[in-house]
Amino acid sequence: MAHMEISERIISEASHLFMKYGIRSITMDEIASHMGISKRTIYENFKDKEKLLWSCISCNQDIQREHKKQIIANSSNVLDAIFNIMFDISAKMNQIHPSFLTDLRKYHFALWQEKIVHFQEDHIRDLGNMLLKGIEDGMFRDDINIEIISKMLNIQLQEMSNENIFPSEQFSRSEVFMNIVVNFTRGIATPKGIKIIEKIIRERIKQQNQQ
Amino acid sequence: MAHMEISERIISEASHLFMKYGIRSITMDEIASHMGISKRTIYENFKDKEKLLWSCISCNQDIQREHKKQIIANSSNVLDAIFNIMFDISAKMNQIHPSFLTDLRKYHFALWQEKIVHFQEDHIRDLGNMLLKGIEDGMFRDDINIEIISKMLNIQLQEMSNENIFPSEQFSRSEVFMNIVVNFTRGIATPKGIKIIEKIIRERIKQQNQQ
Repeated sequence: MAHMEISERIISEASHLFMKYGIRSITMDEIASHMGISKRTIYENFKDKEKLLWSCISCNQDIQREHKKQIIANSSNVLDAIFNIMFDISAKMNQIHPSFLTDLRKYHFALWQEKIVHFQEDHIRDLGNMLLKGIEDGMFRDDINIEIISKMLNIQLQEMSNENIFPSEQFSRSEVFMNIVVNFTRGIATPKGIKIIEKIIRERIKQQNQQ
Repeated sequence: MAHMEISERIISEASHLFMKYGIRSITMDEIASHMGISKRTIYENFKDKEKLLWSCISCNQDIQREHKKQIIANSSNVLDAIFNIMFDISAKMNQIHPSFLTDLRKYHFALWQEKIVHFQEDHIRDLGNMLLKGIEDGMFRDDINIEIISKMLNIQLQEMSNENIFPSEQFSRSEVFMNIVVNFTRGIATPKGIKIIEKIIRERIKQQNQQ
């Protein structure tokens, strides 16, 4: 039981450090000294940095999946759910160092392929189901190709953090994000859907002004 | 003068072959035998394949720029112009072998950087100007960020021919294309703009059924 707890603490702290500073710039030594434990304790729980990283990604994806379920359960309709999920992703991405995902793809390609690509596929499938529900509810047009537009949304969300296209000193990430999500949902919406989108945006702006 | 004509004929034939079969699979020998001229004649006009390719790209881009100007001049409004240009690009892309652009990027990177990237930047700038005109004419919302959404449209048009995302045996290129263009324009349109888009699509379908 004590063993369970220390491995969970290591995953939590290592995840925090990897996401804040990128993967390459954080060593096992730094994780140990940051936690005030010996490097040996880390290696007793995780064979190497690759294994630790693998556990960090798995654990965070489980948390995110659970979190997404709750967001959907707490949303009043499909459009509300899509916006809430999108704002949640945007807030999370703002906390992650840009090099985290590029390091992962470049230096841990097997992990990237196995965990990130599948996770994105899950996202696309979930989005597809929400779009289907939105069509049933009369919020989205019934002549859209769900598979194509889900993939297209995913491409845009990935490219928004591409520094070559949207250098962060020139583009505000949240403005890029808002343009993607608002134009995407409006693009597929019926007149009924557009009214709901405009209401969601008005309320979001009101909330931000109150903060 | 005779010299001018043969170099133009070589550019025209080589462009045709490169686009139809890809760049790597076409040799200078094949271009010569296809044209019924000696390889020496080609080398008298173009130092090497790289130089010939460079001339092909330049020449085709000049033609496309001129063609785009004519499309804009012949269109009845900005939305009509955007759809006409998009359909024109789509038709052209259907005639190009998928490996043409990947070969270019992979094996002729200096050329890619110098000619293709600039050409795409011109496209984005022209689109930006059309969007601005569309806002003035009350067809597009005035709260869109023109630079962001022009880049996003460009990303989508590039990725539509990504075989990893949209394998051609599974996705019809024209359907992917229609989903991009229709959702993009609807996404940024005012109610007035949406009416015009729906009219354009109705007429396009009518034309296709008559063919």
